[in-house]
Amino acid sequence: MSAVTVSVTGAAGQIAYAFLFRLISGEVFGKKRVNLVLLEIPQAVGKLEGLVFELEDCGFATLGDVKCTADVNDAFVGADWIVLLGAFPRGPGMDRSQLLAKNAGIFKSQGEAINKYAKGAKVSEDSGRDGLEGKRTLTPFLCSVKIITVGNPCNTNTAVAREAAPEVDDGNWYAMTTLDVNRAKSLYAKEAGIPVDTIGDEEVVIWGNHSSTMVVDYRSGIGDIANLAAIKQRVQNRGGEIIKARGGSSVASAANAILDTIRNILTVGKFFSAGVVSDGSYGIEKGLIFSFPVRAVEGGRTEIVKGLDVSTIRGDLDKTQEELKGEIKTVRQIFGLGEASKL
Amino acid sequence: MSAVTVSVTGAAGQIAYAFLFRLISGEVFGKKRVNLVLLEIPQAVGKLEGLVFELEDCGFATLGDVKCTADVNDAFVGADWIVLLGAFPRGPGMDRSQLLAKNAGIFKSQGEAINKYAKGAKVSEDSGRDGLEGKRTLTPFLCSVKIITVGNPCNTNTAVAREAAPEVDDGNWYAMTTLDVNRAKSLYAKEAGIPVDTIGDEEVVIWGNHSSTMVVDYRSGIGDIANLAAIKQRVQNRGGEIIKARGGSSVASAANAILDTIRNILTVGKFFSAGVVSDGSYGIEKGLIFSFPVRAVEGGRTEIVKGLDVSTIRGDLDKTQEELKGEIKTVRQIFGLGEASKL
Repeated sequence: MSAVTVSVTGAAGQIAYAFLFRLISGEVFGKKRVNLVLLEIPQAVGKLEGLVFELEDCGFATLGDVKCTADVNDAFVGADWIVLLGAFPRGPGMDRSQLLAKNAGIFKSQGEAINKYAKGAKVSEDSGRDGLEGKRTLTPFLCSVKIITVGNPCNTNTAVAREAAPEVDDGNWYAMTTLDVNRAKSLYAKEAGIPVDTIGDEEVVIWGNHSSTMVVDYRSGIGDIANLAAIKQRVQNRGGEIIKARGGSSVASAANAILDTIRNILTVGKFFSAGVVSDGSYGIEKGLIFSFPVRAVEGGRTEIVKGLDVSTIRGDLDKTQEELKGEIKTVRQIFGLGEASKL
Repeated sequence: MSAVTVSVTGAAGQIAYAFLFRLISGEVFGKKRVNLVLLEIPQAVGKLEGLVFELEDCGFATLGDVKCTADVNDAFVGADWIVLLGAFPRGPGMDRSQLLAKNAGIFKSQGEAINKYAKGAKVSEDSGRDGLEGKRTLTPFLCSVKIITVGNPCNTNTAVAREAAPEVDDGNWYAMTTLDVNRAKSLYAKEAGIPVDTIGDEEVVIWGNHSSTMVVDYRSGIGDIANLAAIKQRVQNRGGEIIKARGGSSVASAANAILDTIRNILTVGKFFSAGVVSDGSYGIEKGLIFSFPVRAVEGGRTEIVKGLDVSTIRGDLDKTQEELKGEIKTVRQIFGLGEASKL
């Protein structure tokens, strides 16, 4: 059985700690061996030794080779999956544009490294044949790398990395909004007094930016309850609610959402939400990293689900789109880029 | 499908945080619903709200009712499994007897509550028949509660709780040494350059006290390597090595070991090590909580594996036994108990 290589940035952080043990336990990749590449900043890379010791001390038969590095050019070599967790946190007195600037620098260099070193970074027209006469296809392993951005602001961080990685196929970028979907389901279920697993995947969509402007869209199938507007607002602010309740941001539930995201991508036919490169659907500017309803298709790829009625949330979609465009504009200014850039 | 109720003490701590999400993900109990009872000290019980929010935000269909409490008399009602994580940590300038005293108080009150409230605390001779003529058996649900102590000193903490819970069957107490087994396997595998899952369960036994006197026993089947003595010592001191490497004690690997322990107990025929009530085997004083090789049998019970040749480790077994007896003696003095006590 072949191995899978997963690269994780910000690997000495709490989300990585909650994520890696569940990942290696076989929850996602079953009995496949999982190689890990763990990236940290030079000041924290030493802390990874203890993490690796503990992974070893679990006796997981699935634990493959583990490489710890502080060099971004080492971090993505041969990766099948890249989880971009590390981001600069918002400090006291820091405004949003300073936060964007700080993270733009990080994600630009990671995008460049992904472009150069990740498995399947380069997808070319003549990269393979599937054996059927004359039919050109992409060689699967060449377009297999999937990048999931968790570090915030995750949509714009993804946009920055993508801009720096022109050879990576657009279909490989995901800004994670799975935690928002999960929160939308759990809060609805609690309010309605129903088991969370009775809510169908297609009944909840998260649209737009992973921020307080995100659009929490309970589709008509879910059945109305009195205070739906209040629940939507609670989903938007759930991150803050968790911080208040536990004195720290969401960790284990974020880690859980990463596992869900990988599983979603791998489950053909699965309907979920993710920040992906807009193809212009639903009036969202082409190229914007925007959370859409998507469906997993063969080959570890996803497609934006078309044709949903969004008439009742049109204004909200525009609002979150405007916020995203504003973030992109700020980052363009930071890098001195013109309108013509892919960003 | 029936539900399982798991009580966890020290539930706002880091090990609980690493344990609970994996527990509820279905790793151990599959699709069964799991009810949780989470006990914390009054100062920390408020922190559990955030943990519960995050559990909800994972959307686990398996998450049953969750009760948070600071009242030990609420903590074990109806429990099928009890995981005793909470223990008073050794502070600066605190000697071992002060540590024992502090924890003895905690585990005594928990033992008393288990005795009164846990499912199946009372096992009586005439508690059931299995339908076959004249054959008396224990009613399974009445002896189904299993108590796993993780908080250190875990052997003696278990002994204290057991002393306070005379109606709980001796077969229901476990002081966890699974992490030591896992460490013994991982460190051997790394040194020998072999995959960890090629080491058979019966090739490693942990005997005695979960402390630096524990006996790390690589059985003859494992094959000799040059520096076995050094590896054994490294296993004994692995806890300290982890603290040094990550700036904190083992958390995720400890949580993983709890999951392994529950799985081990539930897997009929499984050979593992655990601190259980000595039946006098191997010259270990009857009643002492001592880590032995055990084997899971029907009904969620285990038996001490008899007849292993321990001639080469006789002195080591005696040494760890002496340490345990010393701890018990200290606790007896704390409580003013005589030699006749079960402790």
